Amino acid sequence: MTDVVVHDPTLRDGQHAVRHQLGVAALRGYAEAADAAGVPVVEVGHGNGLGASSLQVGRAAVSDDLMLATVRAALRRSKMGVFMLPGWGTSADLRKAIAHGADVIRIGVHCTEPSLAERHLGFLAEQGADGHCVLMMSHMATAAQLAEHAATAVGYGARAVGLMDSAGNFLPQDVSDRIGAIAAAVDVPVIFHGHNNLGMAVANSVAAAQAGATIIDGCARGFGAGAGNTQLEVLVPVLERTGFRTGIDLYGLLDAADFAERELMPAPPTTDTVSIVSGLAGVFSGFKHQVLDASRRSGVDPRDVFFELGRRQAIAGQEDLIVDVVAELGEVAS
Amino acid sequence: MTDVVVHDPTLRDGQHAVRHQLGVAALRGYAEAADAAGVPVVEVGHGNGLGASSLQVGRAAVSDDLMLATVRAALRRSKMGVFMLPGWGTSADLRKAIAHGADVIRIGVHCTEPSLAERHLGFLAEQGADGHCVLMMSHMATAAQLAEHAATAVGYGARAVGLMDSAGNFLPQDVSDRIGAIAAAVDVPVIFHGHNNLGMAVANSVAAAQAGATIIDGCARGFGAGAGNTQLEVLVPVLERTGFRTGIDLYGLLDAADFAERELMPAPPTTDTVSIVSGLAGVFSGFKHQVLDASRRSGVDPRDVFFELGRRQAIAGQEDLIVDVVAELGEVAS
Repeated sequence: MTDVVVHDPTLRDGQHAVRHQLGVAALRGYAEAADAAGVPVVEVGHGNGLGASSLQVGRAAVSDDLMLATVRAALRRSKMGVFMLPGWGTSADLRKAIAHGADVIRIGVHCTEPSLAERHLGFLAEQGADGHCVLMMSHMATAAQLAEHAATAVGYGARAVGLMDSAGNFLPQDVSDRIGAIAAAVDVPVIFHGHNNLGMAVANSVAAAQAGATIIDGCARGFGAGAGNTQLEVLVPVLERTGFRTGIDLYGLLDAADFAERELMPAPPTTDTVSIVSGLAGVFSGFKHQVLDASRRSGVDPRDVFFELGRRQAIAGQEDLIVDVVAELGEVAS
Repeated sequence: MTDVVVHDPTLRDGQHAVRHQLGVAALRGYAEAADAAGVPVVEVGHGNGLGASSLQVGRAAVSDDLMLATVRAALRRSKMGVFMLPGWGTSADLRKAIAHGADVIRIGVHCTEPSLAERHLGFLAEQGADGHCVLMMSHMATAAQLAEHAATAVGYGARAVGLMDSAGNFLPQDVSDRIGAIAAAVDVPVIFHGHNNLGMAVANSVAAAQAGATIIDGCARGFGAGAGNTQLEVLVPVLERTGFRTGIDLYGLLDAADFAERELMPAPPTTDTVSIVSGLAGVFSGFKHQVLDASRRSGVDPRDVFFELGRRQAIAGQEDLIVDVVAELGEVAS
């Protein structure tokens, strides 16, 4: 049996599904339940990470300080994780997270831009903190490119490095190829974080573990935007049955999932047709509402818009492309 | 590219999720949408198949005659499928289905009891009808046993034969082993029908196709009891991306899924913790309410009851075992 460290971003990535409105009681209750189950790392924060609470991507109900203090106090065995996107978060936020006792600090960057993490990973290494780097939207780069960028991040000081399938685009072979290439290129633990747009989040995570990833993410009830994340309480028993050891108590994990369903979310995520199209197109699911609104106004099929955005490799922050694509498709149609 | 025939039991297996209450407008509307998308086979009926509408398993809102006539009239290109469990249905029901123009007639039997299908498959062969046989709860038999029983069914006249993962217990390797053994043992098309208790329905279906299955089942939005069936509109694009040709129009299929979500179901199925436990235990999900009720009354953990029922290989019809198991676990606990 190989050991896998299950990393639980329910209280961070799940926030996207509730506009970052999780309250203190919900944060504390879930952290206690995950801790009781023996989940190794419980990540908390605004959906876009440290420092991101803002009018632009949504204000969180609870400040970073209070989130970190609440979850830290609730954890006895589990480590506390945080996430930061350079630009939203700064070195000051990293200092704050360390002061609050964050054990695992992840820096997320677009898959081809590891240099954006250089300064932060260097700072974390200086501080002796456990700094990790995740390459996001990783379907937009080849296995060889990802292996190169992962090695670069390790050179900056990352103590673990890996991939987010941010658009939920991967099938298991895609994951095997990419994770395998990274595992061969670095000598630190490799991370995989899946989304369920093509119903493959658990299968992709197993493929990642089989290809050498030893840190795998999952959220209770799949809590997350759109089709949701890898469903944690499914992932764990499936990993165990496939020959990986997680150290997590199954019944405790199921209790945490029941708590999450009851107290964190209006309803568990499901894979609707828009999620499928954005997954197939390889487009960030956060584009959903803007694509639907702009398409409706122009009488364009939003599915065509998603596929065209995918062909143009649109990424978060490039929302202006939506308007262009809708306008062009509208002209062709009329 | 290999061709796969996608078989759609939305209007039959989905009935379990709504106590067999689909009305004529819903049946007609979904059949028209699936037909427009080019779905090869649209199956209809009471959840337990022809002749099953009864006080014991629930009366359907619409008679078998009216269901068959409604769907037949709605289909232009798609074939119409029906399902029958010997005991619930009889030869008279098969005659009726043929008279209504059913093109594909499936006989379902417990995985170790193909002989229950002998008379019916023989009758269908005499009639020149396309009689298929599916082995249910197929995690309860080995690959070699399933291959032997599948060959027996072909000997009775089945023109296609395969497996239902009725408890949602399989992982992809389990499917590959079993479907591979059957494909090597028979010279008729091989069927796979998955459930999503372990989040693996789509991955299992791809594994089945890769191991030689050429008839794969999927339901719109996963419509079905508990964690639901393989999600049809995810299955099809994933099969296509994996190198299989379905002949189905993606946008039409997504439209059918949207219709199904809007008109057939109160909410799409999700994988709750009870579904996970019944999948891991390999227990028929129809036991859910009786297990929860009996456990609650006796203060026994229902998860222990599921796992013990799994060890005892309980199957549908053996609901009395639930009471025995709850009583025994209650004694141990007190």
